[in-house]
Amino acid sequence: MKNIYLDHAATTPLSEKAFEAMKPYFSDMFGNANSQHAYGREGAKGVSEARAKIANAIGAKNGEIYFTASGTEADNWAIKGAALEYREKGKHIITSVIEHPAVYTTCKQLEKYGYEVTYLPVDGEGFVSKDDLEAAIREDTILVSIMFANNEIGTIQPIKELCEVAHRHGVLFHTDAVQATGAIRYDVKDLGVDMLSMSAHKFYGPKGVGVLYLRNGLKMEKLITGGEQERAHRGGTTNTPGVVGMAVALEDALSTLEEDAKYVASLRDRFVQKVLAQIDDIYYNGAKDVSKRLPNNANFSFRYIEGESILFSLDLAGICASSGSACSSASLEPSRTLLSIGVPIGTAHGSIRFSFGKHNTVEEVDYTVDELVKTVRRLREMSPLYKK
Amino acid sequence: MKNIYLDHAATTPLSEKAFEAMKPYFSDMFGNANSQHAYGREGAKGVSEARAKIANAIGAKNGEIYFTASGTEADNWAIKGAALEYREKGKHIITSVIEHPAVYTTCKQLEKYGYEVTYLPVDGEGFVSKDDLEAAIREDTILVSIMFANNEIGTIQPIKELCEVAHRHGVLFHTDAVQATGAIRYDVKDLGVDMLSMSAHKFYGPKGVGVLYLRNGLKMEKLITGGEQERAHRGGTTNTPGVVGMAVALEDALSTLEEDAKYVASLRDRFVQKVLAQIDDIYYNGAKDVSKRLPNNANFSFRYIEGESILFSLDLAGICASSGSACSSASLEPSRTLLSIGVPIGTAHGSIRFSFGKHNTVEEVDYTVDELVKTVRRLREMSPLYKK
Repeated sequence: MKNIYLDHAATTPLSEKAFEAMKPYFSDMFGNANSQHAYGREGAKGVSEARAKIANAIGAKNGEIYFTASGTEADNWAIKGAALEYREKGKHIITSVIEHPAVYTTCKQLEKYGYEVTYLPVDGEGFVSKDDLEAAIREDTILVSIMFANNEIGTIQPIKELCEVAHRHGVLFHTDAVQATGAIRYDVKDLGVDMLSMSAHKFYGPKGVGVLYLRNGLKMEKLITGGEQERAHRGGTTNTPGVVGMAVALEDALSTLEEDAKYVASLRDRFVQKVLAQIDDIYYNGAKDVSKRLPNNANFSFRYIEGESILFSLDLAGICASSGSACSSASLEPSRTLLSIGVPIGTAHGSIRFSFGKHNTVEEVDYTVDELVKTVRRLREMSPLYKK
Repeated sequence: MKNIYLDHAATTPLSEKAFEAMKPYFSDMFGNANSQHAYGREGAKGVSEARAKIANAIGAKNGEIYFTASGTEADNWAIKGAALEYREKGKHIITSVIEHPAVYTTCKQLEKYGYEVTYLPVDGEGFVSKDDLEAAIREDTILVSIMFANNEIGTIQPIKELCEVAHRHGVLFHTDAVQATGAIRYDVKDLGVDMLSMSAHKFYGPKGVGVLYLRNGLKMEKLITGGEQERAHRGGTTNTPGVVGMAVALEDALSTLEEDAKYVASLRDRFVQKVLAQIDDIYYNGAKDVSKRLPNNANFSFRYIEGESILFSLDLAGICASSGSACSSASLEPSRTLLSIGVPIGTAHGSIRFSFGKHNTVEEVDYTVDELVKTVRRLREMSPLYKK
C-alpha cells in the first residue's frame, strides 16, 4: 500500500487543476507581471484574474487582496505592520495562547521592542471567550489577532463575535485563517475582520504563496519593502504561477466545500468513534460540538506513552500523522495549545494529530485504527508508567 | 515571429531542467519538509539537497544558506535584521544611490524609525568609490549594503574591495547579488561578504524563491517569525518545489556560465555597435570596460524622445524591452540610477534597457536594431524638441 497521508493540516498535495493552470506561466507566459510589454501583460492578466478569483471567493474587493509568499508572511505583515503603523496610538496587542507560531512568535518578538501582548486563555475545548477579550482591551490596544481555526485541535473560534467586541472598542481585528480557508465557507465582510491571512498549500494549492486580506482604506506599514508590486505595498516580483495556482485551488475547494467537508468529517468521525471504543486512557482534544471543529481534525492524547514513539511506529506502518504543533513537528516542546486546554504536560507529550483529506478512504481509516490500537498497546506494555 | 524577449534582467523563463526537477514535488512528494514521516522526509531530502547545491555553487556552507521567497525578502531581511540586531551599536547604514528598490526603499523605511542612511554617490559609469565608502563610515555605522551588479546599467562593483574597507572598520557588509548570480562566477568566502541575496527567477529558476546567505556565526534578528523552518530563522512552510528548482537552475547556469556569458555578450556587443553606428544623440549608459559590466546589459538614453514611446513602438513590433527601473517598469519616475550617473533628467526619460538571454539569436538582434532605428527616427520627427 502507498503511504496513508493523514497530515493535511501540515500541507496538502497540489491539485491537478491548480497545476494545469500554473504550467503555462513557468516557461511560456513567464513575463514579469510588472513589465510593460507582451510578456508582461500575459503575466499581469494571470495575476489580475487570480486576484479577482480570490477576492470573489471570500467576498472581498480585488484591491483588498495582497499576495504574500506564505500564511506566515501574511501573519507577520498583519501584526508587525499594524504594530508599526499604530505605534503612536499604543503598543498593546491582544492574541490567544493557542495561536500558530506565525502569530505567537511574532508577538513574542514585538515584546522585545517595547510592545505589550496579552495572551488570552482558552477553555478546555480551545475557545477564546468574548468576555475575556473585552476585559483585556485597554486604551492603548491597537490590534486583536485571534486565529479562525486552530491547527492542532481544530477548534473554530466565533470570529464574527470576537471581531465585534474589538470594533466596539475601536480596535483592529486580524484573523489567521490559514487552517479555515478551503475548509469553512466565510465572507470577510460578514465576519467584519480588518485583516485575514491564508496559505495556498493548505487547500491543495502550491507552497510558497499566501494572501493577506487588508480591508479597503486600512493604513498599514509595509513588511517587505521594494518595488511597485501589490500597489507598492509588498515588494518582490509576483510569483505568477503561484498566485494563479492558489486562485484555482481556492475556487475549486469552494466549489465542492460542503460535500468535501461532509465526506472528510465522515472519515474523521468513523476514526474517532473506533479509536475511542478501542483505546482507554485517552483524551479526545478540542471542541465536542462538531460544527465548531474543523471537519478534518482529530487530536488525541494517549496517556503513559510518547507521541514521538507512536508517530514513529505509525510511520513504519506507512501512516503519516503529526505530533506536536502543526507545521513545525521537528520541535520536541510539548504543545502549547494542548497545555492551554488543560492537558497535563506528560499527557500532552503523548499526543497525535490526524488530519484527513478528500483523497483518504474508509479502508485507510480502518487500517489506521488497527495499527494505532496495536501501537498504543505495544508501547504501553513497554512503558514503566502504565499499570495494567 | 514570436515576440523577441530582451528583458532578461526583469525575469527569465524557467529552464526545462529546473521544471522537471520541481515537478515531482508538487503533488507526489508534496510532504511538508518539517514533518516527521515518509512524506516529510521526501520533502526534507529535496530541500537538503537543494541547500547543498546552492551552498556549493557559491562556496558557502550548507548552514549558511537561508531560503526566502524572493531576492527582495532577502534584501529586507539582511538590512532590517542587521538594523534591529545591532541597534545598540548604532543606527547608521551606508548604501548607494543606485540600489534596487528592495534595498533603497528598505533604507528609506528605516529612516522613518530613527536610522540614518548615507547614500553613496556613483561616478559616470555607476561605480561606487572605495574612498567615498571609507569616508562615510562612522563610529555608529552598523552595515554597508552595496549591490553586486546594477539592474539597469549592469555596472559590476568591486565588491571584494568595498567589503575589505567595511571590515577594516568592523562594519558588516551585505551585497544584493540578484543580478549577478548566474551571470558572474563568485565565491562568498573570496568576496568576504557577511550577507548576500539572490533570486531564482533571474537565472532561469522559478519565481517566488530566493536565498539569503548569512555568514556562519553572524547574529541576525528575524524578519519573518514563525515555525522552526530554516533553523528557526525564517518561518513559513518551505517551498520545496521552489527551492529544488532554484538549486537545479543555479547549478545549470554555473555549469555553462562562461560560454553563455560569452554568447550573450556577443549579441549585446553586436547590438550596441550597430545601434551606436546608426543612431545619433544617444548615450550608452554604464561601464565602458566590458569586464565590469553584466554580459547581457545594454542601456541607452535617446535624446529628444520618451522611453515609454520607444517601448510602446517596440512592443508593437514584437520586441520586449524595459524602460525605467528593472522590475518596476510600471513606474513613470525618471530612473534614479540614470540621474545618479549624470544623465540629464529629460534624457533619462528617453532611456531603454535591453537585457539579452541565452535563447536570443543574431537574427533577433538585427531585427531589433532595424526596428529601433526606425522607431527613434519616427519619434524624433514628431518631437518638437528635435532639430534636424
